[in-house]
Amino acid sequence: MVQTDEQLGAQKKASVFNLEGYFKEKKQLVEKALDKSLSIGQPEKIYEAMRYSLLAGGKRLRPILCLATCELIGGTPEMAIPTACALEMIHTMSLIHDDLPAMDNDDYRRGKLTNHKVFGEDIAILAGDGLLAYAFEYAATQTKNVPADRLLQVIARLGRTVGAEGLVGGQVLDLESEGKTNISAETLTFIHTHKTGALLEASVVSGGILAGASPEDIAKLSKYAQNIGLAFQIIDDILDVTATAEQLGKTAGKDLQAQKATYPSLWGLEKSKLQARQLIDEAIAQLTIYEEKAEPLRAIAKFIITRNH
Amino acid sequence: MVQTDEQLGAQKKASVFNLEGYFKEKKQLVEKALDKSLSIGQPEKIYEAMRYSLLAGGKRLRPILCLATCELIGGTPEMAIPTACALEMIHTMSLIHDDLPAMDNDDYRRGKLTNHKVFGEDIAILAGDGLLAYAFEYAATQTKNVPADRLLQVIARLGRTVGAEGLVGGQVLDLESEGKTNISAETLTFIHTHKTGALLEASVVSGGILAGASPEDIAKLSKYAQNIGLAFQIIDDILDVTATAEQLGKTAGKDLQAQKATYPSLWGLEKSKLQARQLIDEAIAQLTIYEEKAEPLRAIAKFIITRNH
Repeated sequence: MVQTDEQLGAQKKASVFNLEGYFKEKKQLVEKALDKSLSIGQPEKIYEAMRYSLLAGGKRLRPILCLATCELIGGTPEMAIPTACALEMIHTMSLIHDDLPAMDNDDYRRGKLTNHKVFGEDIAILAGDGLLAYAFEYAATQTKNVPADRLLQVIARLGRTVGAEGLVGGQVLDLESEGKTNISAETLTFIHTHKTGALLEASVVSGGILAGASPEDIAKLSKYAQNIGLAFQIIDDILDVTATAEQLGKTAGKDLQAQKATYPSLWGLEKSKLQARQLIDEAIAQLTIYEEKAEPLRAIAKFIITRNH
Repeated sequence: MVQTDEQLGAQKKASVFNLEGYFKEKKQLVEKALDKSLSIGQPEKIYEAMRYSLLAGGKRLRPILCLATCELIGGTPEMAIPTACALEMIHTMSLIHDDLPAMDNDDYRRGKLTNHKVFGEDIAILAGDGLLAYAFEYAATQTKNVPADRLLQVIARLGRTVGAEGLVGGQVLDLESEGKTNISAETLTFIHTHKTGALLEASVVSGGILAGASPEDIAKLSKYAQNIGLAFQIIDDILDVTATAEQLGKTAGKDLQAQKATYPSLWGLEKSKLQARQLIDEAIAQLTIYEEKAEPLRAIAKFIITRNH
C-alpha cells in the first residue's frame, strides 16, 4: 500500500507525540472537575465515602478517552467534561461494589484501604449507589452546548453499560466462573467485554456522540474501543503474573490464588502478548482517516500495550 | 368561602370516585409494562434476580402517581409509562439494597423471601445496581412523544432522588440513628423526606414534567407530594405498632424491636394520626384549581390516611 504524504506526516508526528504530557494535562483537568463535582453535604459521612473513592487517583483513562474522542470529532472539552466525570463516577462505583466482602473481598485498591474497610459495608454499598445515581444527574444537568437528543443518547448508553448487559452482567459471570477450572476463552472474553470493555467503549463512543459523530465514525470508534478494551484486560492478566504488588498498588498473583481463569492461564504468556498486540494494531487501523487528529487515541492504544502497572 | 358550582360538582364526584377500580386498571397497565420491560438475557441469573423483585407485586403507588399526574396536566399514559416503570425499578433497587445483611437485614419483603435470601448477597447487590442503571436507560430510550429537554429534566430528577440528596442520604441517616434513643422529630423527618418522600415527590413531579407542567403546577404538585409522602411514613409507623404481620406482609413491631425512632414513639399514636390528617388536608388543598381532573390524586391522598396495610 502506497502511503500518502498526510499518512507519512501523521506517522512522523506519532513518533514525537508526547503522551505523558497529554495525560498529565487531561488528568489535571479531570481531577479538578471531579473535585468540584461533589461537595460535602448532609449527612457528611456519605459524601466523604463517595469522595474518598472518587478522588483516590488512578489513571482516569475513561474520562481521558471521552475527552480525546470528543475533540477528535470536533467537539470541545467543555462539551465532554460532565460525561467524563460521570464515566469516572460509574467506574468508581463498580470498584467499590466489586471490592465488597460479598464480591471480591478486597482490602486494598490503588494502595489505599477499600471503601468498606474505611466506612463499613453499609456505607460502601450506599456510596456506590449514590455515585451511580449522581453520574446520570451530573451528565444530565451539567452538560452545556450539546443538543438534548445527543445527551439522551449518551445517558441511554451509560445506563446500558452499567446494567445487566454490561458491567453487572460481566461481574455476575465472573463470580459464577470463580474456582471453575474449565472456563473457555469465549466465557473469559464475555466477562471482560462486559465487565471492563463496555465502559471503555462507552467512554470512547460517548465522546463521539456528544460531538455529533456520524454512524460511520461511531462504528470505527466502537471497534477501536472494543479492541483496546480487550487488550487492556489481557495485559492486566499478564501484569498480575509478572508485575510486583508495589507496581500494581494491589495484591499481585491474586487471580492465581483465587483460581481465576486468565488469558495467560488459557493461552500462555507469549500467545497472550501476541493477541494483545494484534488487537492494538487493529484498533490503530480504525483511526487512519482521522490522520494526525487521532494521535492521542493512537498513543493511548500504544500505552495500553506497553504499560507495566 | 363561597364554593362555585364546579367545586361543588367536584366534591360530589369525589364521593363517587372509584379508587379501587382506578388502582386496579392502572396497576394492570403498570404490571404489564414492567413484565415487558425486562426480558431474560445472559447470564440468566441476574435477570431472574432483577425480575424476582421487580415483579413481586406491591401497590405500584409510584408509577400510578406518575401516570395520574401526567394525565392531570394533560399528557397521555403512553408519555408517562416508561418513567413510571423507571420509578418502580428505582424503588425496587432501594428495597433490595435496604434488605441486605449489611443494612436492615430483612428476610422477608411483601410476604416473600428477600432477594439476597434467594440469590445470595453478591447477586442481590448487582441486581440492585442493574435495576438502577436500567431505570435511566429505560426512561431515556422508551419514552415517546416527549421533547428531549423535558425527558432530560426527568432523568436529572430521578438521579437526584436516588443519590446522597435523596434515598441514599436518608438511608445513611437512618442507619446512623438506629439504636439511638434521642432522635428528634427533625432528624426523623429528614430521614423520611429523603428515604421515602423524595421518590414519591419525583413520581408526582416527573409525571407533570413529562406533560409540560408550568412552574406553578410543579410547585403545587411538589407540595402535594411532600405532604402525602410524610403522611405515608407516619401511617407506616402507626401501622407497624397497630397492624398484624399478616396485614403487612412483613414482620410487625420490627421498628420497636430495633429501637428505631418513629412518630408514635415521639408523639404518641393520637398526635401522629392528627399530624397525618393535617398533612393530607393540606395536600388536597393544593389540588383545588384542577377541579374534577384531580380526583385520582385526591383519592390517593385519602387512601394513604385510611389504609391498613
